[in-house]
Amino acid sequence: MMDEDMESGTMGSYHDKPRTFPNMRSKAYTPLIFRILLGINVRVLFILLLLGFGAIFYVGARTSPIIVFVISICILSFLVALYLMKWVLAKDEGPPEMVQIADAIRDGAEGFFRTQYGTISKMALLLALVILFIYLFRDTTPQQEAAGIGRSTSAYITVASFLLGAVCSGFAGYVGMWVSVRANVRVSSAARRSAREALQIATRAGGLSALIVVGMAVIGIAVLYATFYVWLGVDSPGSMKVTDLPLLLVGYGFGASFVALFAQLGGGIYTKAADVGADLVGKVEQGIPEDDPRNPAVIADLVGDNVGDCAARGADLFESIAAEIISAMILGGTMAQRCKIEDPSGFILFPLVVHSFDLVVSSVGIFSIRGTRESGVMSPIEDPMAILQKGYSVTIVLAVLAFGLSTRWLLYVEQAPSAWFNFALCGLIGIVTAYIFVCITKYYTDYKHEPVRTLALSSSTGHGTNIIAGVSLGLESTGLPVLVISVSIVSAYWLGQTAGLIDETGNPTGGLFGTAVATMGMLSTAAYILTMDMFGPIADNAGGIVEMSQQPESVREITDVLDAVGNTTKATTKGFAIGSAALASFLLFSAYMDEVAAFSREPFKQVDIAIPEVFVGGLLGAMLIFVFSAWACAAVGRTAQEVVNEVRRQFIERPGIMDYKEKPDYGRCVAIVASASLREMIKPGALAIISPIAVGFIFRILGYYTGQPLLGAKVVAALLMFATVSGILMALFLNTAGGAWDNAKKYIETGALGGKGSDAHKAAITGDTVGDPFKDTAGPSLHVLIKMLSTITLVMAPIFL
Amino acid sequence: MMDEDMESGTMGSYHDKPRTFPNMRSKAYTPLIFRILLGINVRVLFILLLLGFGAIFYVGARTSPIIVFVISICILSFLVALYLMKWVLAKDEGPPEMVQIADAIRDGAEGFFRTQYGTISKMALLLALVILFIYLFRDTTPQQEAAGIGRSTSAYITVASFLLGAVCSGFAGYVGMWVSVRANVRVSSAARRSAREALQIATRAGGLSALIVVGMAVIGIAVLYATFYVWLGVDSPGSMKVTDLPLLLVGYGFGASFVALFAQLGGGIYTKAADVGADLVGKVEQGIPEDDPRNPAVIADLVGDNVGDCAARGADLFESIAAEIISAMILGGTMAQRCKIEDPSGFILFPLVVHSFDLVVSSVGIFSIRGTRESGVMSPIEDPMAILQKGYSVTIVLAVLAFGLSTRWLLYVEQAPSAWFNFALCGLIGIVTAYIFVCITKYYTDYKHEPVRTLALSSSTGHGTNIIAGVSLGLESTGLPVLVISVSIVSAYWLGQTAGLIDETGNPTGGLFGTAVATMGMLSTAAYILTMDMFGPIADNAGGIVEMSQQPESVREITDVLDAVGNTTKATTKGFAIGSAALASFLLFSAYMDEVAAFSREPFKQVDIAIPEVFVGGLLGAMLIFVFSAWACAAVGRTAQEVVNEVRRQFIERPGIMDYKEKPDYGRCVAIVASASLREMIKPGALAIISPIAVGFIFRILGYYTGQPLLGAKVVAALLMFATVSGILMALFLNTAGGAWDNAKKYIETGALGGKGSDAHKAAITGDTVGDPFKDTAGPSLHVLIKMLSTITLVMAPIFL
Repeated sequence: MMDEDMESGTMGSYHDKPRTFPNMRSKAYTPLIFRILLGINVRVLFILLLLGFGAIFYVGARTSPIIVFVISICILSFLVALYLMKWVLAKDEGPPEMVQIADAIRDGAEGFFRTQYGTISKMALLLALVILFIYLFRDTTPQQEAAGIGRSTSAYITVASFLLGAVCSGFAGYVGMWVSVRANVRVSSAARRSAREALQIATRAGGLSALIVVGMAVIGIAVLYATFYVWLGVDSPGSMKVTDLPLLLVGYGFGASFVALFAQLGGGIYTKAADVGADLVGKVEQGIPEDDPRNPAVIADLVGDNVGDCAARGADLFESIAAEIISAMILGGTMAQRCKIEDPSGFILFPLVVHSFDLVVSSVGIFSIRGTRESGVMSPIEDPMAILQKGYSVTIVLAVLAFGLSTRWLLYVEQAPSAWFNFALCGLIGIVTAYIFVCITKYYTDYKHEPVRTLALSSSTGHGTNIIAGVSLGLESTGLPVLVISVSIVSAYWLGQTAGLIDETGNPTGGLFGTAVATMGMLSTAAYILTMDMFGPIADNAGGIVEMSQQPESVREITDVLDAVGNTTKATTKGFAIGSAALASFLLFSAYMDEVAAFSREPFKQVDIAIPEVFVGGLLGAMLIFVFSAWACAAVGRTAQEVVNEVRRQFIERPGIMDYKEKPDYGRCVAIVASASLREMIKPGALAIISPIAVGFIFRILGYYTGQPLLGAKVVAALLMFATVSGILMALFLNTAGGAWDNAKKYIETGALGGKGSDAHKAAITGDTVGDPFKDTAGPSLHVLIKMLSTITLVMAPIFL
Repeated sequence: MMDEDMESGTMGSYHDKPRTFPNMRSKAYTPLIFRILLGINVRVLFILLLLGFGAIFYVGARTSPIIVFVISICILSFLVALYLMKWVLAKDEGPPEMVQIADAIRDGAEGFFRTQYGTISKMALLLALVILFIYLFRDTTPQQEAAGIGRSTSAYITVASFLLGAVCSGFAGYVGMWVSVRANVRVSSAARRSAREALQIATRAGGLSALIVVGMAVIGIAVLYATFYVWLGVDSPGSMKVTDLPLLLVGYGFGASFVALFAQLGGGIYTKAADVGADLVGKVEQGIPEDDPRNPAVIADLVGDNVGDCAARGADLFESIAAEIISAMILGGTMAQRCKIEDPSGFILFPLVVHSFDLVVSSVGIFSIRGTRESGVMSPIEDPMAILQKGYSVTIVLAVLAFGLSTRWLLYVEQAPSAWFNFALCGLIGIVTAYIFVCITKYYTDYKHEPVRTLALSSSTGHGTNIIAGVSLGLESTGLPVLVISVSIVSAYWLGQTAGLIDETGNPTGGLFGTAVATMGMLSTAAYILTMDMFGPIADNAGGIVEMSQQPESVREITDVLDAVGNTTKATTKGFAIGSAALASFLLFSAYMDEVAAFSREPFKQVDIAIPEVFVGGLLGAMLIFVFSAWACAAVGRTAQEVVNEVRRQFIERPGIMDYKEKPDYGRCVAIVASASLREMIKPGALAIISPIAVGFIFRILGYYTGQPLLGAKVVAALLMFATVSGILMALFLNTAGGAWDNAKKYIETGALGGKGSDAHKAAITGDTVGDPFKDTAGPSLHVLIKMLSTITLVMAPIFL
């Protein structure tokens, strides 16, 4: 049905009517909500805000003052974002030739986004029905029975959370793209004046997206929590206990990761197919530079940066934070209950507070990056990386302080007066781990260091040795991160375990929560990290606009420098994302075991990989990762081939293109990439969603006939664990290899080993092409997949039992 | 110390004295034992045989008649091998120009073999001392105490088994190489007369190696078993129980896999570095055909086929069979003991009997491949694949019958009269699984099918899309084999579980043994499979000799056809090897758990991956696979670059080479590759051996300080499992991608997509180059690594406890 829709629906019109640029565009598309927000009267806004605060204080007073605090901070950060938006939009869009190009990019991006999210929302609705159906027919847990929650209530709660998560995740993606297609042209216009101003616009635009994405993740969970709290009358006699509440939020995480998976897959395929296709014909065959207006695929390539990097990364980070908050809340609740802590809300709400502080300290970091005020004066080019790093240092120092404060505030309990300090140390471990991850990624992908230089050297003996060296580099680069993550898991666990919290039977029990706190520490500067990540594609796009509108060399130089910095920040963000995914999955895994135990009313404490079926589950889990990566890469390859053929065709049929005498048909490439990437995202996405459910169900049946209780749940647990481990390693491999190839090429372009045009450079371009789908399609999709597997197994557990 | 030895020792002389071919060779090197065997008087042989049989009957009568049967069959198969050797050696070596080339290849191969095994044997001796030291200071198990075996006895037993395994494995490798460097020239000479005769010589030479390799694995274990049985007075009151005996043989498996690992690494690096280096300059840069005498690296390339494919594969298969027999014996013993079966020797010795029948049925298969008797008449070229397949069909049918017979003979017990039939079905599952594996590998690597055609098509859009498509193909190809192996593990387990065997507590207990029987079924035609595998490099080498000695086109055509068939058989053997490695590791894993339980005197029934340290162990295990593969590939890349530079240098310094006016310095390339591959094999090899020991030891210490008993053993168990699963998938990926790239190139060379010399062909050559270290270095080394990890953890378990 969906497939059909894509073939013949909205995208079909793209296919049928080849459009020429730039006359093709009709009218800027701004969704209703944005038009309202933009046109809003300040007085009306004030009244609305007052009303909002009123509602919050009502719910907050009935839930917990911490919730009031969290929601206030989120609303404040939205106001900051609003200020940033006004600030960015107030910047000029430059001369008409720039605006024309930017409009074409915006049209392409928004067109793709609409169709893509149309498809995704239909799938989400279908899945919501499936979930509803499952939950209406499943048994309730003893906790739910005690709380008087029936089947239908539990079903509606899960479905509503799922849909809310999906909508918010989609909105987060939309914000990322909305901002970037508007900021890109303003950055290129500013680059004509000053590097510093261009940097400032790009950072503030990135910060705007980041604050909204992180703020939405936090406020969504806070509001859901408070609503359930009030609605279900939690903690009143005969009702649900507050420690069981976080498990109801899992649907939100699943909804978020479901949307993020398809957003990342579709966007990732789009951006890299266009990029690879444009490069293969333009750079390699025709020898024209990147982003040259003569290349028919150049607009598609620029559109791809927005839908692939901005929109998809927005949804991805949203989902990461949501999954991590929910898993930490579940663990906090479980632990608080075991230790019989009088007021467990501190432990449950701790993650929300950490991310509220994240919003505050990251805002400070973003505003610490200042532009030159005198817009007429050209400042000398400084190293933008140093400026971004300075902002990061400010953020990190504040984050450490804020983290210490939060632990003392929320995690202080009388039973174990020094526990909060142990947990603060866990947070520090997380922050340090994140920092080391960034260093390791830099070591393996920056051409200042040995690995990339060796890779560049291997290009001088041919395409083959370049690929062999790149693959080896990527595989090897998994070593150090795994050692670091191992040390941090074990040490955070032991700091937690020795925090002094003991359960009824007198055993120490804070270990897992310690790991959770470390994860939060790792993500405690998420908004700033996301800002740096969003910065990259905006700068990249600005460079494209500058090149296409044929600005002077000096302007291009400025955007080139920003673009190069963006490559580094993008690579480091990925290391960061994979580290937090590893930790978060480990937490969700234990939440899964708790949930299975609750439903089955049997203890479910261990997963024994010596049972053949469980071993098979592990094999299948690891296999899932391999096949998923295969399909993601193959999708890019296939789509890129379509682009290559189209571009070649245009060069042959319109020989005047090379002399600027004929205009290439940009629209046709956009249409081809868009429809192909929508088609191609279905197969890997469906694999990821269907296989854990199918495996769980089949082994549940098998267990029934062979008399092995809980077999389905055990096999799924093994699948989850092996998929997580393989996924982490595979993603590290793909991201690092891709980044290293990219920078080996850049290193040669600086003049090393023969420089541009040499045989070594050609071999390096091959490596870069191979690395594209690795680092921007398969790798990031794996981050999302790993977390989606954790949430899907939690939500779908009733099928396996 | 070893490193130093390599730098300055025997290999150094290679480096210092550049030699020119063919005047460089001194004297054929035949080790003493071969010279004795070859020159032996028939009458003396007869007497020796009688003496041997006498000794066997003495030990056999005191052990079990089954042992007598097994040893007799092995000796018979050695006689058959002796006949084959005389038959092959009696063939003519062709004209002097062929002999000269063959001599140079033999010199290179034997020189490398000597140095390589010199290094390996020093490392093995060092490790033997370590093992001795560990076992002298460890506690004994209750079983050993009951049997009155002290620490020193147990230490000497383990060390002696280890050394015997190492020596046999080395000898197996030597036989593979010894045969192939003699058969290659005879095949090329025969190719001048008839394709059929060439095929027959190559098959019989392969069969000769196969019979010796498999026979040695079986007789080694049988003799060790019988010796221990008699020496320790097994089953007499107060002594060891026969069911505990197989655990003493583990050292043999470890020794075998230790040698096989380094043989495969060194040989794999050698062969592919030479191949890649020769191709990159010869084919890509200079445009001369493969195996052209003007290429200075061509002799090194031909030497590589012998040391990499023949010697290494001999050691690999030897180790596979040994590991599988020992693990099945351990499981059989454990099960027989649990079920209180009166005479457990049938269950314990079953694997030896299966492989004895393997020798018989494979011999029949080998002899079913007939040549044309009239040597003067040229027969029309038939499809050699069809002939080999016919032989395989004969073998498989006989194997099924023999397997049924063996199960009825040895596995019939009165408690469960139909158990033998269930186990026969398990064997059938194994045979069918092997067959399906062969089909899947063919589907993904044969250019008659869609995947390789799609890959070839992707070459037409450039180097980049070719690599992306190949990587995707390889990753995707892990899917079906994993599904098949999953089904066969689960179904064999359940056939075993429902066989009717019950333990003391009344629970069915035959499951794991069922899986073991399936593994044996899979390997029940091992000797024939190895024959087909050895056939490939012999044919490849023969082709090289034909090309270098500039024989007419018609002769080259014959060897080309044989070579192409060899590529297919090689690829399928790898699928087969990885399938059996998967099953065997699962078996050894449960043996490991039993062993830990025995040493620690605590139950050790499950490995709980929800414990953070255990999860970390899993992460480390999977990481080990990634880093090991990285180092193996990187070693090839680095060595190939040395070759490229040397070949380029020779072409520049000796401009007459291209016009046949100057002779290239073949010896220098041989020396460079030899010394580089010896240096490069150390790093990945050491990683594989040291990391499980280090991880186990560190977590043992950590467990001690945090009060977690058996932590080291648990973490190592997780490491083992995750490494096995990741290793299987990674090996499948590497092997299939490599094979597919190779055949995509071949497909284009048949004239498709522009044929030889087109851009698509160039892109396909890049893919082939990348695939070389994947499929012939990293992939096969992973097979060995997986099994070595199982045996090393068994032998080194005292360190973790």
